[in-house]
Amino acid sequence: TETIRATLFPGDGIGPEIAESVKQVFNAAEVPIEWEEHFVGDKVDPRTESFLTWESLESVRQNKVGLKGPMATPIGKGHRSLNLTLRKELGLYANVRPCYSLPGYKTRYDDVNLVTIRENTEGEYSGLEHQVVRGVVESLKIITRQASLRVAEYAFHYAKAHGRKRVSAIHKANIMRKTDGLFLKCCREVAEKYPEITYEEVIIDNCCMMLVKNPALFDVLVMPNLYGDIISDLCAGLVGGLGLTPSCNIGEGGIALAEAVHGSAPDIAGKNLANPTALLLSSVMMLRHLGLNDKAERIHDAIIKTIAEGKYRTVDLGGTSSTTDFTKAVRDNL
Amino acid sequence: TETIRATLFPGDGIGPEIAESVKQVFNAAEVPIEWEEHFVGDKVDPRTESFLTWESLESVRQNKVGLKGPMATPIGKGHRSLNLTLRKELGLYANVRPCYSLPGYKTRYDDVNLVTIRENTEGEYSGLEHQVVRGVVESLKIITRQASLRVAEYAFHYAKAHGRKRVSAIHKANIMRKTDGLFLKCCREVAEKYPEITYEEVIIDNCCMMLVKNPALFDVLVMPNLYGDIISDLCAGLVGGLGLTPSCNIGEGGIALAEAVHGSAPDIAGKNLANPTALLLSSVMMLRHLGLNDKAERIHDAIIKTIAEGKYRTVDLGGTSSTTDFTKAVRDNL
Ligand SMILES: CC(C)[C@H](C(=O)O)[C@@H](O)C(=O)O
Ligand SMILES: CC(C)[C@H](C(=O)O)[C@@H](O)C(=O)O
Repeated sequence: TETIRATLFPGDGIGPEIAESVKQVFNAAEVPIEWEEHFVGDKVDPRTESFLTWESLESVRQNKVGLKGPMATPIGKGHRSLNLTLRKELGLYANVRPCYSLPGYKTRYDDVNLVTIRENTEGEYSGLEHQVVRGVVESLKIITRQASLRVAEYAFHYAKAHGRKRVSAIHKANIMRKTDGLFLKCCREVAEKYPEITYEEVIIDNCCMMLVKNPALFDVLVMPNLYGDIISDLCAGLVGGLGLTPSCNIGEGGIALAEAVHGSAPDIAGKNLANPTALLLSSVMMLRHLGLNDKAERIHDAIIKTIAEGKYRTVDLGGTSSTTDFTKAVRDNL
Repeated sequence: TETIRATLFPGDGIGPEIAESVKQVFNAAEVPIEWEEHFVGDKVDPRTESFLTWESLESVRQNKVGLKGPMATPIGKGHRSLNLTLRKELGLYANVRPCYSLPGYKTRYDDVNLVTIRENTEGEYSGLEHQVVRGVVESLKIITRQASLRVAEYAFHYAKAHGRKRVSAIHKANIMRKTDGLFLKCCREVAEKYPEITYEEVIIDNCCMMLVKNPALFDVLVMPNLYGDIISDLCAGLVGGLGLTPSCNIGEGGIALAEAVHGSAPDIAGKNLANPTALLLSSVMMLRHLGLNDKAERIHDAIIKTIAEGKYRTVDLGGTSSTTDFTKAVRDNL
């Protein structure tokens, strides 16, 4: 097999340690990937208006595939959030987060198996806010037909490709009739092209109530930016938290940037304590995107098996294993 | 004791049946309340621009206290949502929803005991939306210092009066720096006046994750309108749903309008199948607001006891009891 070049952003804090874990597992599984590693710069790059270097963005644009650890945006002025810059510059329009109960890691739920698909570029994240008069501030939510159609199309495409049966569009169109109304209209248009997939619309407050009562009701959920932010974290909570759930961003021109969405945990950085599961599972999403399904399944099963065995468990899961111990266990389970 | 006049909106669908349940329990407990009953009209009242009659609003303004069942907004044009009209016309600035695990009604959680306090008049509910160009729609979120201070003050006042120890302000100020930032600023100002209460700020996505993992971490939560809408329903889901959780709206001039926030359930209306628990518990909040604490506790304990005994359970809770059977059981437990 040919070698595939992929961009790797180890990120900050625990990022380099969990990225190392992925590299080792990929090596052991003989995944034909050559990493192009890029770090966040220590000063603002005027071409990206952020601490991200122009070269790193070019690398993703060219490779069309990448893996990203947590990035903490340095506090200060004159630059944009790293995560938001990546989403904007690479046109990462859909954030895909599969969320399923992990055998062997007990939570209050054992019946979660859903995927949230979040519009990732607009909505409440427009960045357009202003003070009208003292004490009165406005913020603009923007919904476009283009971005809504694009994410709806991705959601149905994903559902079909993964054998899923139902797509739920999450909204608050009873209040935001025009913005969320447009989002729903786009979802309905796309739904018509997929008669084999059940389409439903669920109001966000009711959706959250149903998710905590009976998450098995849901399959694929598609939604505007902020609702996706909220609901994807809620769903992660059902199965144990962001340390266990993978994510992948789909961008313009077929880019796929897989990403661990948890924080950079500076308190435990460099201590060999971080849980690499979210980044490992994200790397599996990247492999599936590349069509390297055998490698993907092999690594996926080794991660799941290691967690199910429960012998090697990192501190965040109540265990005492180090990052490297856990990684070795995954490699041994390949 | 003097008789207190209170406005009663039985509401639509199952509303009249569950309102009847409250009336009977109040009679049996000899609560010194005289109801002034008001129904939703069958045509738009130009003075309220909705199906609510002017007289019904005047009744709440005068009595300063009321109880409200579910109201379904009739579909059509030329009138506003009934719930939103009530909030606007009566200046119902805070929606208070205590949420606790009910002994005897098992869910995945048995450790919930929190109160959500929702700003109820502005934010994403401004109703200001427009199409910029075809396919691009904007919606305005408005946060004011006045409304934010008012709800923050109520939250801390409530926390102190109810012996609660912590207030968490829920926000997304990392993205909406100006709007949610102003909300937080107001919360911080008020927090300074309550040194005995721990104040913290939690980002909404993280809050939802923590709520489903470990709701016992939370005590009082205060937040802008949409987050309150979402989180209060999520919390209700933790303990069994909107059929079991009470709510009370605090309005300008000391108005308190207690309210069952579930729907009007037209499918079971008139069939003596509705669960009156949410409205009964809401009526208890109304009694506490009036300082009728003995009556409130007596009724509260009878409701809790009836649910805990589990002998009379309505259909929504998996039982076979009628509304009147359940009501009789509560009366017998007084
Ligand atoms: C860090 C923050 C800006 C980000 C977001 O709100 O999108 C995060 O919560 C996420 O979900 O990736
Ligand atoms: C019915 C709807 C307009 C309302 C809201 O969004 O506020 C409801 O969800 C609530 O929480 O009272």
